[in-house]
Amino acid sequence: MFRLHTYWRSSSAYRVRIALNLKALDYESVATHLAAGEQNSEQYLATHAQGLVPALEHDGTVLVQSLAIIGYLDRLVPEPPLYPADLVGRARVEAMCHALACDIQPLNNLRVLQYLKGELGQDADAVKAWYGHWIHQGFRALETWASEHSAQGRFVYGDAVTAADCCLVPQVYNARRFDVPLDGYPVLRSIDEHLRTLPAFVAAAPENQPDAGPA
Amino acid sequence: MFRLHTYWRSSSAYRVRIALNLKALDYESVATHLAAGEQNSEQYLATHAQGLVPALEHDGTVLVQSLAIIGYLDRLVPEPPLYPADLVGRARVEAMCHALACDIQPLNNLRVLQYLKGELGQDADAVKAWYGHWIHQGFRALETWASEHSAQGRFVYGDAVTAADCCLVPQVYNARRFDVPLDGYPVLRSIDEHLRTLPAFVAAAPENQPDAGPA
Repeated sequence: MFRLHTYWRSSSAYRVRIALNLKALDYESVATHLAAGEQNSEQYLATHAQGLVPALEHDGTVLVQSLAIIGYLDRLVPEPPLYPADLVGRARVEAMCHALACDIQPLNNLRVLQYLKGELGQDADAVKAWYGHWIHQGFRALETWASEHSAQGRFVYGDAVTAADCCLVPQVYNARRFDVPLDGYPVLRSIDEHLRTLPAFVAAAPENQPDAGPA
Repeated sequence: MFRLHTYWRSSSAYRVRIALNLKALDYESVATHLAAGEQNSEQYLATHAQGLVPALEHDGTVLVQSLAIIGYLDRLVPEPPLYPADLVGRARVEAMCHALACDIQPLNNLRVLQYLKGELGQDADAVKAWYGHWIHQGFRALETWASEHSAQGRFVYGDAVTAADCCLVPQVYNARRFDVPLDGYPVLRSIDEHLRTLPAFVAAAPENQPDAGPA
């Protein structure tokens, strides 16, 4: 019924995998090997014109963009809700999602790193500095917000899982993968550590995907 | 009642100005001069921890991130709706918003261009090529989607204004400002041309803001 075009290490696909699991929705994984460039094939571009993952097929239609997909799933299957019911709470959770999904991740995804190395001729150190810079820019604000809004350092907002948790864990995974020091973010680290014990998050983790490659 | 921290040339603030106007909400403009670095002042960071515009004050609370603010306004004042009522339509409009607000604009905003010039020592031509590259990447997909979903080349989706229109016009403005050729996007150009005749869009345009500087 659900068919997810995914890649084990794509943090956008990781967000949607978590949401599908939280909603207890079974889905078929279709791996699109980003590092091998499969997202630029004519066939994949016919599915998703941006040539990005994820894309979710459901009921004969294709949905794209991780947060649009998460919003769709949340309306289709209301329990558990992935956004607070009150207007301000919802806007705060959405803002945290966008700070991660608009202001950190798109700056650090594969196509951008390839452009930095290729067109701009940057070496590995410069690319790593770039990567860490945007994570720190975003995490500083998120640490402030999580300090204000997390009830007990278990979830980003309040004391229940939201879409912001679906976005945080993949971004922390990326930070670790690129050796970005996270000492300055005790609240985010506590939340991430707790979330990664939850079954929906465990099942969505990159290393537990059928297309996982070597670390 | 509404107080918008804005900058005339910020395309994220421009989106929210359009939405406020579409909802016929009066607001006070507080200019934050990005090119002068005012967004990094301690005072502004206490308002918005990311040091970005826009931020919207309402009812004693501060909301950030343009799409979270637009979602809040749409729930607060339902008419005219800025998203289709059906689940798939809503997901498609949100996807178009995110393709603009996550995958184009954050790559081209001021702090990134400053990093390219400063830390990475790129010259004006390289920065301009970078800017155009990400616009073309995104606009190619948006042209495809708009061709499928725009009813008559007047709005991005269907035949009524949506949040995707609030995102498109500021991005086309940016493209023009950086001389990115738009010949390949006849549907987007037609939509943009129509939208820019509507009063809500005219009043939100950069050149019509109280803090507008020289072109």
